[in-house]
Amino acid sequence: MNASESVVTEYLRGLAASHPEVIEFNSEARIVQRKLLPVQPKVGLISGGGSGCEPMHSGYVGFGGLDAACPGEIFTSPVPAQIMAATERAESGRGVLYIIKNFGGEVMNFGLSAEIMKRKGIEISKVLVNDDCSFPISQFDRRRGLGATILVEKIAGAAAQRGDDLAQVTSIAKKVVTNSRSFGVAFNSCTTPKLGHPNFEMPEDEFDIGVGIGGDRGHSRSKMVSANKIAEILIEQPVLELELAIGKKIILLISGLGSTPSIELYTLSGIIQDKLASVGTVVARSLVGNFITSLDSFGVIATFLVADDELLELFDSPIDTPALRWGN
Amino acid sequence: MNASESVVTEYLRGLAASHPEVIEFNSEARIVQRKLLPVQPKVGLISGGGSGCEPMHSGYVGFGGLDAACPGEIFTSPVPAQIMAATERAESGRGVLYIIKNFGGEVMNFGLSAEIMKRKGIEISKVLVNDDCSFPISQFDRRRGLGATILVEKIAGAAAQRGDDLAQVTSIAKKVVTNSRSFGVAFNSCTTPKLGHPNFEMPEDEFDIGVGIGGDRGHSRSKMVSANKIAEILIEQPVLELELAIGKKIILLISGLGSTPSIELYTLSGIIQDKLASVGTVVARSLVGNFITSLDSFGVIATFLVADDELLELFDSPIDTPALRWGN
Repeated sequence: MNASESVVTEYLRGLAASHPEVIEFNSEARIVQRKLLPVQPKVGLISGGGSGCEPMHSGYVGFGGLDAACPGEIFTSPVPAQIMAATERAESGRGVLYIIKNFGGEVMNFGLSAEIMKRKGIEISKVLVNDDCSFPISQFDRRRGLGATILVEKIAGAAAQRGDDLAQVTSIAKKVVTNSRSFGVAFNSCTTPKLGHPNFEMPEDEFDIGVGIGGDRGHSRSKMVSANKIAEILIEQPVLELELAIGKKIILLISGLGSTPSIELYTLSGIIQDKLASVGTVVARSLVGNFITSLDSFGVIATFLVADDELLELFDSPIDTPALRWGN
Repeated sequence: MNASESVVTEYLRGLAASHPEVIEFNSEARIVQRKLLPVQPKVGLISGGGSGCEPMHSGYVGFGGLDAACPGEIFTSPVPAQIMAATERAESGRGVLYIIKNFGGEVMNFGLSAEIMKRKGIEISKVLVNDDCSFPISQFDRRRGLGATILVEKIAGAAAQRGDDLAQVTSIAKKVVTNSRSFGVAFNSCTTPKLGHPNFEMPEDEFDIGVGIGGDRGHSRSKMVSANKIAEILIEQPVLELELAIGKKIILLISGLGSTPSIELYTLSGIIQDKLASVGTVVARSLVGNFITSLDSFGVIATFLVADDELLELFDSPIDTPALRWGN
């Protein structure tokens, strides 16, 4: 980096410069927005969150994805002014859906913005993403928004693009959340730019279980185990809660946390697919890469979405964003 | 990982399981091949190299890319038996192009296979990729194949897909190599699975200049500098050799070496684009991500390809592979 104060701005400028046909960085409003306004009025989609989780959310702005994203400072929620600017950019007469991860600051600032925007006459709808099942059901309120966020942005983005109204897009988004579960592990602590060294100590032969994307510790720590065992840890709770069994089809998202190489992510994807096959569940689609991260953390989040034909069709439909692109 | 002996096989199985419509892992021949044979006979494209550089090459197999890839063991060239099996799979009556990175083992084993295949009546043509300009021109023979390999696979793959004959596809591939230069730096040493610890020591406040993808040291070491300075190091020699100036258009490939997060790669992409703009060179297309890696190395390779309209059109045409996908 050049300087810790400019890390986020320099990233946003580089992202926009690298995808000039798809997005632009509105530096005044501090949002990333679709380069072109939609040809037909459509439901707008916006999201936002602390930076450090790239390519989320700015990498999912574009055709078939978000209309605008609000990046906060590193691991810090965006402020209402950003969210309101994004709302106004995304509104084309059919209302705007807020995709909100279950983090206190996001819930508060998106909620506040929604009230103000509604008073200005813009129809706002919200979906809360809380797919993190590393917290037990008894602590449901603490469940964070993890990999399902990407799937909501893709699938609800496709619904908006095909012309669904706000109630329909919201209903699709909620369906994705309800049918998704995620679980994460990490093998080191990330280094936040301001601090300049890892957030906490992690012995080399140990790893954290139940991590999120904010550079925090997991719920518990374990001695290092094999890839097979890690796969078991990642799927146990999702399989239970989603009742994965014979006849179910899922979309699988394996996201590295920023520093996990492709060779390891695909290895894990293969093992998880074998384990799911053994309970009769078919992985109908998979995404393997760095989609939701935590700076330079070495770790992985596995996300499982039980998908019917409608969700699969929306997932397959064209998208053109910096981080996801197909059919276009 | 589960065990160092099975790292490559488990990766290949996971890759194939994650992209079942596009590729398959032929475990007997130990190659990754396109799932479907081309509808029309076309020039075949194959490549291969040591594993540890994922998604290269197996991630570039598919429509508009390679017909088959030969993964060696970690940082070890594939053997002739793999290359010959890949050749036979890729041949549909119009000959096969070998895309060979300038590493001793690859040159030897692809060369040997070409001789045998020619005797069997298959027309073979070769392109040697040597875009690494960290070696001075006086040591031209030592220049390794780096990021240009990806661009050759994409662009020559498109030429084969549109129906060019072997001489034409080869000529396009050579044009890409001639007009490409790459330069790499790294901030740590990767850990090879068998060794289980970093290949060499690297003080935290230093970095290596002129690295490749085999886990070796760079040509020289420097005290840590800013992102701006790193961008200058990366572009200096490519700008000179490609005579980047007013009126030139390039395709820019910024590849992390495996553990470099998106936020840093895009930051660098932005700075490099600014610097190129200052000499009048336009970045017409860019790819930013982990495309050619060196296990869990923290570092980057910047690749510059001077592109005319033909190369841009071929670059833009549809591709459907695990690591690159658009228009399909």
